[in-house]
Amino acid sequence: MSRSNTAMLIIDMMNKMDFEGGEDLLKHSIPMVDRLVALKERVKGKDIPIIYVNDNFGQWQDNAANIIEECMKKPGKEVVEKILPEENDYFIIKPKHSGFFGTQLDILLHQLGIDNLILTGIAGDICVLFTANDAYMREYNLYVPKDCMASEKESDNENAIQIIKRSLMADTTESTELDLDSFVQKK
Amino acid sequence: MSRSNTAMLIIDMMNKMDFEGGEDLLKHSIPMVDRLVALKERVKGKDIPIIYVNDNFGQWQDNAANIIEECMKKPGKEVVEKILPEENDYFIIKPKHSGFFGTQLDILLHQLGIDNLILTGIAGDICVLFTANDAYMREYNLYVPKDCMASEKESDNENAIQIIKRSLMADTTESTELDLDSFVQKK
Amino acid sequence: MSRSNTAMLIIDMMNKMDFEGGEDLLKHSIPMVDRLVALKERVKGKDIPIIYVNDNFGQWQDNAANIIEECMKKPGKEVVEKILPEENDYFIIKPKHSGFFGTQLDILLHQLGIDNLILTGIAGDICVLFTANDAYMREYNLYVPKDCMASEKESDNENAIQIIKRSLMADTTESTELDLDSFVQKK
Amino acid sequence: MSRSNTAMLIIDMMNKMDFEGGEDLLKHSIPMVDRLVALKERVKGKDIPIIYVNDNFGQWQDNAANIIEECMKKPGKEVVEKILPEENDYFIIKPKHSGFFGTQLDILLHQLGIDNLILTGIAGDICVLFTANDAYMREYNLYVPKDCMASEKESDNENAIQIIKRSLMADTTESTELDLDSFVQKK
Repeated sequence: MSRSNTAMLIIDMMNKMDFEGGEDLLKHSIPMVDRLVALKERVKGKDIPIIYVNDNFGQWQDNAANIIEECMKKPGKEVVEKILPEENDYFIIKPKHSGFFGTQLDILLHQLGIDNLILTGIAGDICVLFTANDAYMREYNLYVPKDCMASEKESDNENAIQIIKRSLMADTTESTELDLDSFVQKK
Repeated sequence: MSRSNTAMLIIDMMNKMDFEGGEDLLKHSIPMVDRLVALKERVKGKDIPIIYVNDNFGQWQDNAANIIEECMKKPGKEVVEKILPEENDYFIIKPKHSGFFGTQLDILLHQLGIDNLILTGIAGDICVLFTANDAYMREYNLYVPKDCMASEKESDNENAIQIIKRSLMADTTESTELDLDSFVQKK
Repeated sequence: MSRSNTAMLIIDMMNKMDFEGGEDLLKHSIPMVDRLVALKERVKGKDIPIIYVNDNFGQWQDNAANIIEECMKKPGKEVVEKILPEENDYFIIKPKHSGFFGTQLDILLHQLGIDNLILTGIAGDICVLFTANDAYMREYNLYVPKDCMASEKESDNENAIQIIKRSLMADTTESTELDLDSFVQKK
Repeated sequence: MSRSNTAMLIIDMMNKMDFEGGEDLLKHSIPMVDRLVALKERVKGKDIPIIYVNDNFGQWQDNAANIIEECMKKPGKEVVEKILPEENDYFIIKPKHSGFFGTQLDILLHQLGIDNLILTGIAGDICVLFTANDAYMREYNLYVPKDCMASEKESDNENAIQIIKRSLMADTTESTELDLDSFVQKK
C-alpha cells in the first residue's frame, strides 16, 4: 500500500472558549464538531495522517497534555471532549495564528511527503485563514471543507470562505462530498 | 532628531497588470494611486522610511531595475510611472504573496527599529492581506488606510478590509485622516 | 525590579544518549553537567529566565513530559536527572539542530524582551553551534561559556568553540567567571 | 531531457574585500576562484542550475546590478571579474550569513525540484558554513568541494571543513573528483 500524500489539520479545537466572543464561537462550533468528527473518521480510514495544530494558550512549555487538561476545565469542554486526539495523531503546538509560524509543521509535512492538505477547525476567519494562507504560499493543494470551520460571526466565516476560495484557489466542497480516494493518487 | 519607529510599505505597485483580471485591478488602482502618492509625500515629510515590497514576477534575479523596466512596458505603466521608487526608498523583492515570506523585510524592519507599519498597495485581498497577517503575527501595530488598497473586485476588497480590521485589529482610517505625528512618538 | 533582558538556553540536555557515539557524549557531559547546574542556579538567582530547548526525538507530539520520561529510561538518565526542568522554566521542543528552526523560540524571546543569550548544552559542535549561528543572525548578544558545552570528540568541541568565538563574536568566558550583574543592565 | 535535481550555489563571490581581514580573504580566494570557474563550467555543461547567493552589503534595495558594480570598484574586483554571473544564472541577495535566512532561496529550490546542493564560495567558516547548516536542516544532500571554499585564516577554513564533514555529513570531495553524472540521476 502506498503512503498518502495528504494530511488533515485540525486547528485549535482544543480550546478554552473562555475569552470575549468565545460564547459565540462555541455556539457555532457545537454543530460543526459533529461533522468534523465524521470527517476525521473517514479520513483515518484512508490512512491519511491527522495533525492537531493548536494554540499554546500562553504556556510556552510544549506540553500537549497540559493544554488539553486546561481546556477540559473550561466551557470549551463541550467541544473538546468530542474530538480528543488519539494516540497515533500528531500534535503540534503553535504560538500564533498560523499553524506554520514558529512551529515544526512544515518540517513534519515535508518528512511525511505531503502535497495536499485538508484544513478544518476554528476560528475560520483567523487561525484557519492564516494557516491556509501560509499553506498556499508553500504550494500545498488546499481543501477547506466549508462546513468544518466556524467563526464567532457567521458573516466573518462567510468572508473567510470567500477569501480562501478566491485568493487561495482552495476547494471548499462540503465534507460529506469530499472524495477522499481521489487524494490518495493525486500528486 | 529622533528616528521614526514607523515605516510605510507600498506593496506590488510595480505591476504589469497583464494577467487575467489585471484590467479590473488596474481600473481600481488608477483612482487609488493618486491618494497613495499624496500619502507617500506626507509620510516622507515626516522622515518615515518608505519600503517598496514587490513581486519578483518569476525573475529570481533580485534586480529591482529590471522589474520596474518590465512593468513600464505593460498596461501597469499607467500606475507604475506615478509611484516610482525614489533614490532613498528601500526596495524588497518578494517571491510570494506575503512581503515577509522569503524576504529580508523583517530583518530590515528590526534594524530600523520599526514598531508601526502603514500598509498600502495591491491586491488588497491577496498580497496586502497576507502581508498584514504576517505583520500582525510579528506584533507590529498596523495601519491599513482603506482608501490606499485596491483589489480586482470591490466586494473582495471590502471583505479583506473587514478581516484586516476585525481579525488583525488594524486601524483602517482613511489616508487623509491619518495623524502621522501620533506615530512618531508612539511605541 | 526591572525585568532581565537576558535568557539562558539549555540545549538538548534531556537526552537519551543511546545513539552511536552517545557513550562518548555522555562521558563528556557528566563532568560538564555539574558546572551547568551551578550556572543555572546562579542565573535563576538573578531572575534570568531559563529556556530548555530540546530535541523532539521523532515524537512530533509536542509533549515535553513524554520526552523527559523516555530519556529517564535510557543511559542519558545519569545526566538528565541532575538538570530536570523546574516548574517555572520554559520548555521548547525543536525538530532539528538549531533551536530557532521550526520552533517558537524567537517569538518567546521577542515577548520576553531578550537581547542577550547565554547558550549551554550539547552537542557543542552541532546543536549548540547551529543555535548560536541562528541567534547571531537574529542579532542577539551571545555568551557561550566554554565549560558548559560538550561534544562527542574533544577536538570537535574545540573547533566549535573557535568558530563560535571568531565567526559569531561570542563571549566564551568560563561559567564561573561570568559576571551576571553586567547583563541585567546591558542593552 | 530530464531536469536536474541538483543546483550549485556560489556564495558571496561578488565581494568588495575592503573590510578588515579582507586582504587575507582575497589572498586565499585568488587561487580558489580558478578552480571554482572550472567547476562552474563543468556544472553548466550538465544543465545544473547555478545560483549566486550574495550579501546585500547593506543596500536593502535588491538590485543585483548595483551590488556587482560596487564590488568592481574595490579590491574584490580581482576575483569578481573572473566569476561574474551569466544571463541565465539565478541571483539571490541575502541580508545575513546564511543563504536561507531572509531570502527566496528555499522557495526557488523547491520550485526547481532540487534535492542535492553543491556549495562553494567564501568565507568558508562563516557564510558557507551557515548556509550549509541551514541546507542540512532542510534535508538537502550536501556536496562542499573542499578546494572551492576559502576563509581569512587557513586553520579556520580547515575547522569549517571538519564541521561540515562531520556534523553535516557532507561530501567534501575535491571539485576535480566530483562525478557530476552521478547527481543527475540521484534522488
